Amino acid sequence: MPRLFERVTIAGVGLIGGSLALAARAAGLIGEVVGLGRSAANLDTARRRGIIDRYTHDPCAAAQDADLLLLAVPVRSIAAVARACAPGLRPGAVVSDVGSVKQSVMRDVAAALPAGVSFVGAHPIAGTEDSGAAAADAELFRGRRCIVTPAAHADAEAVAKIRALWEGVGMRVDEMDAARHDEVLAWVSHLPHALAFSAVNAVLDVDALMQESAGPSFGDLTRVAASAPDTWCDIFLANAAQVDQAVARFVTTLEALRAAIAARDEARLRTLLERASGARREWSAGHA
Amino acid sequence: MPRLFERVTIAGVGLIGGSLALAARAAGLIGEVVGLGRSAANLDTARRRGIIDRYTHDPCAAAQDADLLLLAVPVRSIAAVARACAPGLRPGAVVSDVGSVKQSVMRDVAAALPAGVSFVGAHPIAGTEDSGAAAADAELFRGRRCIVTPAAHADAEAVAKIRALWEGVGMRVDEMDAARHDEVLAWVSHLPHALAFSAVNAVLDVDALMQESAGPSFGDLTRVAASAPDTWCDIFLANAAQVDQAVARFVTTLEALRAAIAARDEARLRTLLERASGARREWSAGHA
Repeated sequence: MPRLFERVTIAGVGLIGGSLALAARAAGLIGEVVGLGRSAANLDTARRRGIIDRYTHDPCAAAQDADLLLLAVPVRSIAAVARACAPGLRPGAVVSDVGSVKQSVMRDVAAALPAGVSFVGAHPIAGTEDSGAAAADAELFRGRRCIVTPAAHADAEAVAKIRALWEGVGMRVDEMDAARHDEVLAWVSHLPHALAFSAVNAVLDVDALMQESAGPSFGDLTRVAASAPDTWCDIFLANAAQVDQAVARFVTTLEALRAAIAARDEARLRTLLERASGARREWSAGHA
Repeated sequence: MPRLFERVTIAGVGLIGGSLALAARAAGLIGEVVGLGRSAANLDTARRRGIIDRYTHDPCAAAQDADLLLLAVPVRSIAAVARACAPGLRPGAVVSDVGSVKQSVMRDVAAALPAGVSFVGAHPIAGTEDSGAAAADAELFRGRRCIVTPAAHADAEAVAKIRALWEGVGMRVDEMDAARHDEVLAWVSHLPHALAFSAVNAVLDVDALMQESAGPSFGDLTRVAASAPDTWCDIFLANAAQVDQAVARFVTTLEALRAAIAARDEARLRTLLERASGARREWSAGHA
């Protein structure tokens, strides 16, 4: 495959940004990689591991000559980094990100960029508990899903190149608009996290000793409650409206189950359980 | 170890009853095993696999001469089977069960048994998706937890023998009263199931297509929604009051998280997430 971008600047050489650089270089999709970040220790690690060729702490310098500027910093910092890099961007450059929330990010980044620069939002759904360039892994994305969210007026060639980049490192790429992305992710990722954090806190409120008797079902429910509080503070706030709606609708559904139990309405209860059980078994079969 | 029970009748030779018979026989803890059940096909399988020596469909005959009658049928059937077996039980016999709910079961079984018979409730916390004698596995219980819930007036020797039985097949045995068992299990098992069933149903209500974008966090949250609807109908109804209370308290905690997000109260949100994350990491370390 021909190179998609000769020169790439990665702002935030952490798990996602670092892994993409490793994977895309291995696949021959990108040429020189410049790292932009604050921690010299992390950037030195990245250079030693062959993730980047060189680095700078200066956003404007980092953006100069970049064919692709990848904003791989935490959600709350994406717009600020875009603003800092904007003066250095040349016309024709492509800007992309890897944020878990898209509507607010795309609005803020689009407002920050000069004319002639294309922004294509992306959300590679992959990760581990680890972070930093030391954790970067060229195989992180293989077989996982990436959602690309082009703006209404997005440049078709830029969209095609961002798709090709993530497909080139092994991801299945879906395209949807940012609002749909945020609704779907509120349900399939942000709600599960809200339930996990809340289940742990509720047990702590009632009687922390109960955890000693907990087995696999509590373990599965709460696994993602061990995630980094900073990251999830960012995500919940950046997608507040959609998360609010998903939690509210979920509570309505949960209260219906509770009402069936309280009324000892066995027929209704059985219907609710059979519906969920059937759908979950089908989902497992489809994700095997 | 000397034999605990010379002659054992197992009512319900399924995954749990069958696995216990296999494991306890292998450990030399029990002598002859008589199976009681309705399905001749399942009982023939059990006999072929060496789980039982012989079987009957007659509860009264099955109970005669048994040193231990183990009620390993679904929760809703335990009391009825105890009543059917009661006329055959000899004084000095021990009756136990394996139900996931204890207060209602213990009350109903105690009322069904003749004087001179000891009942000791037990809940071995183990299982798989499979069922029936064909799925029985002598290693099912190893390293897992069993909660024994003796009645207030329980015979100390009978309690000691039931503890020794489950310890003898590899379980860590805790003792607690039935009310505490039902409260703890409502939180660490029944609530996770209620959330899993409801999360699947809520997604189906809103837009079933969203499941296509679901990844590991949705998968973990909803894994137990694939459980058998019959079993969970029984458990929710048998422990209705405790499940109701756990769900209600959980919703209060979840609504506090939702309120912090809606108010964009970052300090409050961070406190909630850090508390849960810290506790969940500790729990993982303790359950490694």
